[in-house]
Amino acid sequence: MSESRPDQEPRGEPWQWQEKTWREIVDRTRAGPSLLPSIWPNGARCAVALAIEADHEAGALRDDDDGPTRLSQGQYGARRGLPRMRALLERDNIRATFFYPAVAALLHQDEVRSLAADGHELAVHSWIHERNTQLPYEAERDLTHRAMETLDHLGGRPPVGLRAASWDFSVNTLIIMQELGLLYDSSLMADDDPYELLSDEEPSGIVELPPEWIRDDAVYFNMQRFTALRPVSAPSVVEEIFRAEFDGAWAENGLFLLTLHPHVIGHRSRIGILDRLLRHIKAKGQVWFATHAEIAAWCREHGGQAGSSLK
Amino acid sequence: MSESRPDQEPRGEPWQWQEKTWREIVDRTRAGPSLLPSIWPNGARCAVALAIEADHEAGALRDDDDGPTRLSQGQYGARRGLPRMRALLERDNIRATFFYPAVAALLHQDEVRSLAADGHELAVHSWIHERNTQLPYEAERDLTHRAMETLDHLGGRPPVGLRAASWDFSVNTLIIMQELGLLYDSSLMADDDPYELLSDEEPSGIVELPPEWIRDDAVYFNMQRFTALRPVSAPSVVEEIFRAEFDGAWAENGLFLLTLHPHVIGHRSRIGILDRLLRHIKAKGQVWFATHAEIAAWCREHGGQAGSSLK
Amino acid sequence: MSESRPDQEPRGEPWQWQEKTWREIVDRTRAGPSLLPSIWPNGARCAVALAIEADHEAGALRDDDDGPTRLSQGQYGARRGLPRMRALLERDNIRATFFYPAVAALLHQDEVRSLAADGHELAVHSWIHERNTQLPYEAERDLTHRAMETLDHLGGRPPVGLRAASWDFSVNTLIIMQELGLLYDSSLMADDDPYELLSDEEPSGIVELPPEWIRDDAVYFNMQRFTALRPVSAPSVVEEIFRAEFDGAWAENGLFLLTLHPHVIGHRSRIGILDRLLRHIKAKGQVWFATHAEIAAWCREHGGQAGSSLK
Amino acid sequence: MSESRPDQEPRGEPWQWQEKTWREIVDRTRAGPSLLPSIWPNGARCAVALAIEADHEAGALRDDDDGPTRLSQGQYGARRGLPRMRALLERDNIRATFFYPAVAALLHQDEVRSLAADGHELAVHSWIHERNTQLPYEAERDLTHRAMETLDHLGGRPPVGLRAASWDFSVNTLIIMQELGLLYDSSLMADDDPYELLSDEEPSGIVELPPEWIRDDAVYFNMQRFTALRPVSAPSVVEEIFRAEFDGAWAENGLFLLTLHPHVIGHRSRIGILDRLLRHIKAKGQVWFATHAEIAAWCREHGGQAGSSLK
Repeated sequence: MSESRPDQEPRGEPWQWQEKTWREIVDRTRAGPSLLPSIWPNGARCAVALAIEADHEAGALRDDDDGPTRLSQGQYGARRGLPRMRALLERDNIRATFFYPAVAALLHQDEVRSLAADGHELAVHSWIHERNTQLPYEAERDLTHRAMETLDHLGGRPPVGLRAASWDFSVNTLIIMQELGLLYDSSLMADDDPYELLSDEEPSGIVELPPEWIRDDAVYFNMQRFTALRPVSAPSVVEEIFRAEFDGAWAENGLFLLTLHPHVIGHRSRIGILDRLLRHIKAKGQVWFATHAEIAAWCREHGGQAGSSLK
Repeated sequence: MSESRPDQEPRGEPWQWQEKTWREIVDRTRAGPSLLPSIWPNGARCAVALAIEADHEAGALRDDDDGPTRLSQGQYGARRGLPRMRALLERDNIRATFFYPAVAALLHQDEVRSLAADGHELAVHSWIHERNTQLPYEAERDLTHRAMETLDHLGGRPPVGLRAASWDFSVNTLIIMQELGLLYDSSLMADDDPYELLSDEEPSGIVELPPEWIRDDAVYFNMQRFTALRPVSAPSVVEEIFRAEFDGAWAENGLFLLTLHPHVIGHRSRIGILDRLLRHIKAKGQVWFATHAEIAAWCREHGGQAGSSLK
Repeated sequence: MSESRPDQEPRGEPWQWQEKTWREIVDRTRAGPSLLPSIWPNGARCAVALAIEADHEAGALRDDDDGPTRLSQGQYGARRGLPRMRALLERDNIRATFFYPAVAALLHQDEVRSLAADGHELAVHSWIHERNTQLPYEAERDLTHRAMETLDHLGGRPPVGLRAASWDFSVNTLIIMQELGLLYDSSLMADDDPYELLSDEEPSGIVELPPEWIRDDAVYFNMQRFTALRPVSAPSVVEEIFRAEFDGAWAENGLFLLTLHPHVIGHRSRIGILDRLLRHIKAKGQVWFATHAEIAAWCREHGGQAGSSLK
Repeated sequence: MSESRPDQEPRGEPWQWQEKTWREIVDRTRAGPSLLPSIWPNGARCAVALAIEADHEAGALRDDDDGPTRLSQGQYGARRGLPRMRALLERDNIRATFFYPAVAALLHQDEVRSLAADGHELAVHSWIHERNTQLPYEAERDLTHRAMETLDHLGGRPPVGLRAASWDFSVNTLIIMQELGLLYDSSLMADDDPYELLSDEEPSGIVELPPEWIRDDAVYFNMQRFTALRPVSAPSVVEEIFRAEFDGAWAENGLFLLTLHPHVIGHRSRIGILDRLLRHIKAKGQVWFATHAEIAAWCREHGGQAGSSLK
């Protein structure tokens, strides 16, 4: 299973492909049976998972951008954003999942150790925010392995989940996750609720906890001076969207998985979005706040119908 | 009529063109007589058509993007988006028109058959979401023909209408539609209300049911990580726009044609737009919900003034 | 004065330029004395000019885009947008200035003649929406001259004003305007209120009636499928901006100059912006609605202080 | 210390870098100890600094854009935008910091002298808005030095602070600032509040007063015809964001530093944002309005804890 598969042999224009070609592409990594459980722990109506991507300086480094400006924007995440987020997590007694590029973790080791000591989950988020679809299999596997070791070393226990940087899951990522024995992925978006991933139509044993750009602070607020990305969204609009996504999850007894970046949501004009959203969720009640690892384990045990390989 | 016309001979800079050149370009495919009928069935004030583009994985495949992430976004349409939309259509007893790239239909055959069984219309939407303006005549004709056969085979009756993928109507598309005996197109935007298309100043016999980007969910919500497209629109703003377009159609006794994508509008924070819009339309009353085929047939019979070749 | 000036000799990196270089660039075409008059006709508090850019199919033609889709969007302007706008102008008895690319005028000759017959002003807006900064002097001069002749022929009187297509005023445009004996330009944005243009620090005799992107419908609503332009603005936001610009002009006894495109503002969900804005302006009162030609003539006669060459 | 350091030797793909490489990049210019003082002058709760970037024509010149249109947009800043801003500053008796590209200062010498005479601060903002990261060390140093001399000559006293044009701080900028004896920078964003910059892990003696794109008018309103930048933000949204940033600073006893451009915020529909924001700040009370130089000097004296090299 561990052989590298060449994934870019020339295959002509898509409108000229044979059926075999597009079926193989679609089936390489595809959503399988739902793992939505019939009940959540303690009779909760829905589960809430906070995915905090602590990229800090890694985004700039990935782009080989050594200009101090963008690096300083990342540093803001560690210096001001994360402390503001932690204050809210502590207020509401929530344990979250922190996805770290290994390089960001190595640049902020005390932060990582302190989060682990507080019971938060550490999960894999690449080596240096590299894009998996631009790497050969061997490099992706090596970087993922080293990233796991780094978090294990800093956090005191091996990570069990992974999220591809830029959610750039490659045709090799699923195989690598199986080889490295991970429990869950959180990069793919075929559902709102947990499901099992299929690899070439076979059950993979990997739980998918789906993120979505809709539930990601960065898409609304990112700024790049020399492209057209501008932070033009009103905080009140982002709050409207996040709240509607949560309300839908609550109404459907599903999962609400929200992605946040300390250097994005952590600013003075934005941290209120998280503050008010948490108050709204608490007021609604009957919610299970949990780490990704806890949710994946629960869904693996209690989720889905006949057909899943995980039960 | 079936000869391929070379359409990209060099013709210099536009500001250097002779009048003949720009007149031929404009007249190749142009709006002819209005087919707005003086009355709609059952004395309705206006007609409402829902165009549901079930692209699913086809958008990623068209771009030769084999990364599982974007494919999973398309899969969301089939897995979660479409069921939510169907629940609303069933609640309000509406039959809609589903535009399928043939490849998407082949990947989701049960879905297609079930929609046909429920009385919804199936219509042509390319083979694999290819861009017509980048194809030679022969390829576009062949792909369109095969797409028609695919939908005929799956749905049990030959499709009568077409919408170009990405609304990318080529200089050959109208001729191909005539050759293949289609009733209507829904790609061009010269009017709010139905009209007849002219081909080189001659009546084509093809009814145009005009879409508009304004009445398309995707333009407000699409996300692409490595371009500047971001889903920054507030759902409430999109609702404001769609409602104003409907109110205008209702006030003018015209057509309200709305384009929706299951993987776009079907999310928890967005499905409410459709829910509330349908409630608004129902509350306004005197509306004829119909498929594109029904509206095209009605307009062909009852629409327009003297001058149309269709009466 | 009529010699072509080479305008793209290599001149190195801007940070290496001598003072002479950047001063010449800045002084080539620069704002001179204000021509804001101390009074407007009939004791009005402010002047309001509507600049309607009837580009229709010309935008697509300029880009050599022969795809029927974008052409149909332009055609919408003539078919639906302009009639809706004219109904409002007639309701409020307003004469506006219609800027026509000559090719658009030739494609819609009845429309042009009818507007002229109703007393609206016709003004130059390029030959085929070409970008002036990409043309040699001779070509720009020739196209401008032919555009003037075309509007003269269709409208029955020679145009006296010009607006560069895409507001892409070249280093030669001002000289060409002087050579062709025009009264005013409406492309440059150094002020809210009318001023005289200087050519190489000398008075040019040309009145500038400044437009602004802020007061242009297209910047808020344009859509291009294969770039990142999307019509994401709420109509209510555009109304907020236009109203604030007018209120500022009214408070300062200045000019409110609004640019509108029939194929943009003329849609069912947008025409209400113009409707409500006109009602707001009427309610505020003491406003002089006039054509650009009338305002330019008034400002030339009554505007500014000592120092203008125009008095 | 003054040797040029080559900063672009090839170093391979980031995911292949050794730890030494990414650590050196991060440490080249990094945030050091906080300089937030325990008290502000006169017992104020927070400090407010207005950074007015008077770029005028310099943005167009930097891009070698000699088209009169964009130059006229810059000229608007001097002609209409700045006078409106000064009226508000005078009303509220506020002294601000004006960042001038030297070329803009030379093009508007009376304006610069008048601002200095009114007690406003003049600070360095490049020679011609050049991008530092694209320049060799020698060029950046020479341009910075000449920019300082220009402002000294026009304003009657040597500038003590600098902001990189486009906030494009290079790997050499900090060293150049030390060599030229400046007191503060205002380009980097690792904090909301003042801090000391470290150079290769050593205290630099330079105070950082951090700006942020969030608190910059241009990111919300810029327009470029041939890119996708459009001024789609509602003024009310920008006001919401600026107000939330101020409220956060006030709640935390911190610094509120707002960046404004006369040619952006100075328009009739936008100047109200500044008007209402200043009223809000005044109503909140206990605020120290000061120039950047005053704040940097205060923080150097009273800011931070043990560990800063500045005390």
